[in-house]
Amino acid sequence: MYMDHAATTFIKPEVVETMLPFLKEHFGNPSSLYSIGREGKEAVETAREKLAKALGARPEEIYFTSGGTESDNWAVKGTAFARRKKGKHIITTPIEHHAVLYPCEYLETQGFDVTYLPVDEYGLVDPAELEAAIREDTILISVMYANNEIGTIEPVSEIGKVAREHGIPFHTDAVQAIGNIPLDLSGKERDVDMLSLSSHKFYGPKGIGALYIRDGIEIDNYMHGGAQEREKRAGTENVAGIMGMGKAIELATANIEGHNEKIRKMRDRLRAGILEIPECRLNGHPEKRLSGNLNFSFEYIEGESLLLMLDQMGICSSTGSACSSGSLGPSHVLSAIGVPPEIAQGSLRLTLGDANTEEDINYVLEVLPEIVGKLRAISPFYKPASVCEK
Amino acid sequence: MYMDHAATTFIKPEVVETMLPFLKEHFGNPSSLYSIGREGKEAVETAREKLAKALGARPEEIYFTSGGTESDNWAVKGTAFARRKKGKHIITTPIEHHAVLYPCEYLETQGFDVTYLPVDEYGLVDPAELEAAIREDTILISVMYANNEIGTIEPVSEIGKVAREHGIPFHTDAVQAIGNIPLDLSGKERDVDMLSLSSHKFYGPKGIGALYIRDGIEIDNYMHGGAQEREKRAGTENVAGIMGMGKAIELATANIEGHNEKIRKMRDRLRAGILEIPECRLNGHPEKRLSGNLNFSFEYIEGESLLLMLDQMGICSSTGSACSSGSLGPSHVLSAIGVPPEIAQGSLRLTLGDANTEEDINYVLEVLPEIVGKLRAISPFYKPASVCEK
Ligand SMILES: Cc1ncc(COP(=O)(O)O)c(C=O)c1O
Ligand SMILES: Cc1ncc(COP(=O)(O)O)c(C=O)c1O
Repeated sequence: MYMDHAATTFIKPEVVETMLPFLKEHFGNPSSLYSIGREGKEAVETAREKLAKALGARPEEIYFTSGGTESDNWAVKGTAFARRKKGKHIITTPIEHHAVLYPCEYLETQGFDVTYLPVDEYGLVDPAELEAAIREDTILISVMYANNEIGTIEPVSEIGKVAREHGIPFHTDAVQAIGNIPLDLSGKERDVDMLSLSSHKFYGPKGIGALYIRDGIEIDNYMHGGAQEREKRAGTENVAGIMGMGKAIELATANIEGHNEKIRKMRDRLRAGILEIPECRLNGHPEKRLSGNLNFSFEYIEGESLLLMLDQMGICSSTGSACSSGSLGPSHVLSAIGVPPEIAQGSLRLTLGDANTEEDINYVLEVLPEIVGKLRAISPFYKPASVCEK
Repeated sequence: MYMDHAATTFIKPEVVETMLPFLKEHFGNPSSLYSIGREGKEAVETAREKLAKALGARPEEIYFTSGGTESDNWAVKGTAFARRKKGKHIITTPIEHHAVLYPCEYLETQGFDVTYLPVDEYGLVDPAELEAAIREDTILISVMYANNEIGTIEPVSEIGKVAREHGIPFHTDAVQAIGNIPLDLSGKERDVDMLSLSSHKFYGPKGIGALYIRDGIEIDNYMHGGAQEREKRAGTENVAGIMGMGKAIELATANIEGHNEKIRKMRDRLRAGILEIPECRLNGHPEKRLSGNLNFSFEYIEGESLLLMLDQMGICSSTGSACSSGSLGPSHVLSAIGVPPEIAQGSLRLTLGDANTEEDINYVLEVLPEIVGKLRAISPFYKPASVCEK
């Protein structure tokens, strides 16, 4: 029973089917001039068109990368270095994924100056506050589209508008948004200049992603080398991965509303059920959140023990983001929205997706309260008390 | 008929088989704590052990990347930035792949100073000359193991020794060497500190590679973000690709001598046959070259026309490296070994590998002389003359 779709998703069978020929017969290097190379090239361009179509972009604005992490690194560091002469100030938020935060910290060691704009208790950025933070020397704004831990959806169109008015390039990490939020880079997202995505979050393969770069945006290359990707991103193309991602985005964006409706219905029932457990709270915004996301804090409990006991009952979940699960200490996102560390450590993220059914909800609602009860029973801090906060 | 193994290789069926479960059922994120995440994690570690074993390294010294280009970018830029305070001088060669050369050029724009050590007419680096180029402030030496265009094999052990004696980190791009040259990082390559490799050059999938980093080497992170790869290379692991590469390196290094013997025999017959064509020369070293590599220049001919006519006859070949095929102008490698531009432009690379049989050799020997003859017949510069130079 998989409830960790924000960490990664299974690959849809149609996506695997699309990849197989490029693992088996069509192995040509897309840069080669002969026919079997051209097959690879055509495949890559077909996938690029699918991505462009799904995002309301032009194919020439899509660059393939090795995943969300590379896209974020490229957008942040590439823009900062390219615009260094114009200024050294960057605005971002403390709830970004580490793939944005750590490049920013790295830039600080290189003489850049980063404002980590505070967010409210739900994780929301205030566009007016963001505008107030803009300086003469601001060269980049990076605010994620939707948060991977608490699911909060940021006011990206408004932020984009502010950025555009001030002539500052605006990057958004949309890794969690693809397939869950309809995007249109020539419509409501027309003020987004760079957008990161990662295939394994929308039922495609791992190790492949893309960066959308609006035509005319100043950005240094990040992977230097061969002439691939119109000389902007070197490296032999992961043709099978690219084909898989093309198919995956097509499927994931075909009916976002229908998908959300189904997921949201399950999610809301799960939420209501879990909130019956005493002394738990929902983290993130009650409404402005990804359809599949739930994030709770249970007082007096260690998130890791909870997760392991859920695993024993066959339920895959998460305490925070998968990719920092190796690190100790409470989530930087929960800290940023003001959850006290002792409560943050008892947090649980359940993210629903295409792998889930109504039965899964029943099962979690059956199992989770019991586990929470057991863990609290052995907690030295626990004294049975009040009702749920929310 | 595929004679472009240096550009890319087909994926061996056993390799695809190893990948499939990780595209189908085992989709967990290796960073996740629950069981299906652990499966992914174990897979990644199994593959890491296979790489370590094949290279004579320890598993902790292997870091997975998105390919040879990323490995080269990381090694060169990561070391330069990490050691910036110790000096700004880098030594490399003019025949490196662009994935090393362009990062070096980029570093020049960042205040570093790069010596492009001249090579001899065969593309060989002289370790004594290299030693003479070392300065007080030299912080990195990067010399490729084997050249992708002309196949020349550099004296890597000797260069490593010089580097070690001077206490300078030594990186080698071994992308073309894996599976063709037996490597032992705890034996004859013990003085190599960093080594790049790329799976799609040894019958594995595209978009996956590795950087070997000897324990204790100072290097900055290149992909900043999640805690993957012991916090040294962020980004969700391409588990299927990693598994494929693990299997591929195991197969490719199981019997390098046997492989080379077979390939070399075909190669030598092809070489002898082609050198019967008048006014052609072999580029690169006659002996110190990769077993599958041949690179010729035919006077009075455009390499691109040759390649297209060969393609029409069903033969896949190359004029230089695949990844710069988009770019105009003669090969930087052929220029560096002193091939005049008008001759360099008539060059043809044939690289043999597991896809080839003796019949392929017969076929090329039947077809190529004719095509060369036809192209010369329509060349305004051609006057039938002498015999082959070599
Ligand atoms: C918001 C966000 N950004 C970036 C990433 C990194 O993407 P990838 O896993 O493809 O490296 C992730 C997921 O891990 C994410 O959730
Ligand atoms: C010597 C050499 N280095 C680096 C690369 C780049 O590797 P990749 O194609 O995996 O980006 C190649 C091949 O393209 C190569 O031949």
